[in-house]
Amino acid sequence: MRNDRDLAEIERALGAPVAGNGLLHRRAFLHGGVFAAGAGAAMTGAAKAADSIGTSAPTWMTQPGAVMSGYGRPSEWETEIQRIFALTPGREPTGSSRTPLHLLEGTITPNGLHFERHHNGVPAIDPAHHELLIHGLVERPLVFTRESLLRYPMETHIRFVECSGNSGGANRPPEPRQITAGEIHGLLSCSEWTGVKLSTLLDEAGLDPAAAWVAAEGADAAGMVRSVPLEKCMDDAVIALFQNGEAIRPEQGYPMRLLLPGYEGNANVKWVRTLKVMRGPAQARDETSKYSDLLPNGKAVQFTLELAPKSVILKPSYGLSMQGPGYYEISGLAWAGSGRVSRVEISADGGASWANAALSGPVAPKALTRFRLPWQWNGGTATLMSRTFDEGGNTQPMRDDWLARYGPRHNYHYNAIQAWGVGTGGAVSNVYV
Amino acid sequence: MRNDRDLAEIERALGAPVAGNGLLHRRAFLHGGVFAAGAGAAMTGAAKAADSIGTSAPTWMTQPGAVMSGYGRPSEWETEIQRIFALTPGREPTGSSRTPLHLLEGTITPNGLHFERHHNGVPAIDPAHHELLIHGLVERPLVFTRESLLRYPMETHIRFVECSGNSGGANRPPEPRQITAGEIHGLLSCSEWTGVKLSTLLDEAGLDPAAAWVAAEGADAAGMVRSVPLEKCMDDAVIALFQNGEAIRPEQGYPMRLLLPGYEGNANVKWVRTLKVMRGPAQARDETSKYSDLLPNGKAVQFTLELAPKSVILKPSYGLSMQGPGYYEISGLAWAGSGRVSRVEISADGGASWANAALSGPVAPKALTRFRLPWQWNGGTATLMSRTFDEGGNTQPMRDDWLARYGPRHNYHYNAIQAWGVGTGGAVSNVYV
Repeated sequence: MRNDRDLAEIERALGAPVAGNGLLHRRAFLHGGVFAAGAGAAMTGAAKAADSIGTSAPTWMTQPGAVMSGYGRPSEWETEIQRIFALTPGREPTGSSRTPLHLLEGTITPNGLHFERHHNGVPAIDPAHHELLIHGLVERPLVFTRESLLRYPMETHIRFVECSGNSGGANRPPEPRQITAGEIHGLLSCSEWTGVKLSTLLDEAGLDPAAAWVAAEGADAAGMVRSVPLEKCMDDAVIALFQNGEAIRPEQGYPMRLLLPGYEGNANVKWVRTLKVMRGPAQARDETSKYSDLLPNGKAVQFTLELAPKSVILKPSYGLSMQGPGYYEISGLAWAGSGRVSRVEISADGGASWANAALSGPVAPKALTRFRLPWQWNGGTATLMSRTFDEGGNTQPMRDDWLARYGPRHNYHYNAIQAWGVGTGGAVSNVYV
Repeated sequence: MRNDRDLAEIERALGAPVAGNGLLHRRAFLHGGVFAAGAGAAMTGAAKAADSIGTSAPTWMTQPGAVMSGYGRPSEWETEIQRIFALTPGREPTGSSRTPLHLLEGTITPNGLHFERHHNGVPAIDPAHHELLIHGLVERPLVFTRESLLRYPMETHIRFVECSGNSGGANRPPEPRQITAGEIHGLLSCSEWTGVKLSTLLDEAGLDPAAAWVAAEGADAAGMVRSVPLEKCMDDAVIALFQNGEAIRPEQGYPMRLLLPGYEGNANVKWVRTLKVMRGPAQARDETSKYSDLLPNGKAVQFTLELAPKSVILKPSYGLSMQGPGYYEISGLAWAGSGRVSRVEISADGGASWANAALSGPVAPKALTRFRLPWQWNGGTATLMSRTFDEGGNTQPMRDDWLARYGPRHNYHYNAIQAWGVGTGGAVSNVYV
């Protein structure tokens, strides 16, 4: 049990700001913390005293509720929780929809809200007539159906998928666009994926010593082809059949997709139907005309496949308003294509000082990681920023540094620090720092 | 890189059976394993040789696919993947629906398939008119809205929820019922839950020294009330607002539920509206007439809240058929209300010998854990069983032992070992051992 002396010590240790403009120690709220019993003060100012005990029964307690359902849906009051089409007018087959990150919590993306990026729509594939062919530089070309893959040893991992075009277009304009975190960064989702290790299938086919790359082709009308280094295919690549427990969704590659943990989304070929083992990359349309990094000198770098460390504060972010001075929790998502997120730092004073956020564990490699930090907002202006570090110590650049590195028309692999401005009235805006 | 000598060593170490009737070492399939390159044999017998390279384009590659959608749905070919109403005829508001565990993989349950157990249907609660009142033995009775709770520090954890009536009714009949694993054990689901620690809110209200229990009341038409020891409320209990990232579903308590990790489902009061801090339990209807353990002497034990260790093999299980002799992966789910699953053992010879399964990590406490083990089915009869151990070394009883402990009409807290029989034709049946 805690006594008053313990409480006082906790308060001294955790109650003092750890970085400028009100950032508190990441454990300030834990173990009863400094804002709890004793002082008589409400913790966040958000709760209200109960005037009378025992409120009258609401309508929904006076009549039987709805019957059960075979496949449930969100609450009728949550109509706003939809994928976002803001950056692609209309709903043509070619385009993208984004995960509304700013309206979600935790790290898992519900399957209905996983971002979409289609080059010619979502094919309606009958799994009984879908086959995966492994051919090229192999001893035994093999064909796998979904049914046959279900007999193979599987692996289950929580992994993020991020489009390499995420965040970039929204951050290129000279003035910051006043759009939500989901509209800017929502080509990003995270699921528990289950499937068969690609190395198992390639081992069974038998690799030719000259094998060095694998070209993966999707069964959509775009005939998407991307090349993947053999080393990645033999490492943690998976033919994914399940997404958050159930059969993979049509928009994510039903009945099977290539999953390349930490690699740019486009290379994780959906509806995968052939894997051709080759000496070099296929130089397919989508790795020459697109998904390459355009440099200031007009040349382009190909095959920047591993996604760099990145993070975004979601609470607060544009579109959400502060509800008066007091205690808030700053929270957001961090990720790194190289492995685990090792640290996330937050600044409330535009980068003058930084504090370590708490990471919600267990922190899995190549998975979205939720970070949190208590903040005492004094009602004044603030510039909130986050930066994540991977296990190799790599972190995020400032926006100006990122822009200077690439040409003016470059959109891919943007991982600069996102900043949000908080005004004295509590409105939150997208700002460049 | 692996050389031939390494391969031979791996084969010696992993290729030999580790328990009777074909169970192989849990790592036999890893790192290229013993069934891969070299022998020229297909790994599972499931793949087929490709006759001609380059199959003709399927229909869905010849026309644009479907447009994007705001909130996605499963594939039109997955109509079978629904919650199960088998044990409750009709779809009345009072009853249950079960997660089709045998059709899923990994550990996360998609929100649309989370099991339901309603005592008077699913209330349609407008979150703007829902309040959580904390009162009773507190210094300051407080009222929280969803909006106010969103300002509080949150936690995110993957946790299972299991109804205390799970598995029992289906295993009481003298002859084993030939129904699926989902029908027997599907009052069990697992989600990533995010919410506010209950201890934070109770600390803010200020606990009276006499406080020892908390009675939680739901806002459904059943007015469900359950009592929870204060110690649990101050430990890892949460007021959950989010489920797998999005707002909690109506069937699981929208806009907020009490989440008591590892405790029987019914105590995790959904649609929670009041928490009354008390000296003792409320002795409410659902902890006296129901959810108590009926002993052979006619007396009943109350408040068996923590769920015991348990497991079920899902692949193979009743309703699935083996596709001829060869290599298979045995896979299933294990869980324990006390914390982490420390070990899962599998037998293929009716309990005569056991082998350790591989656990899919990171193994989180009070979360479903996927286990896997390679099995060389020789085409003969087999009796498959699994038993899990928690960190304290507790495990599952045999069915006869469980039945002997409780009275003949007792249904709750069944955690005996589930056995599946495999016939020579490959059919899988529910068997008692």
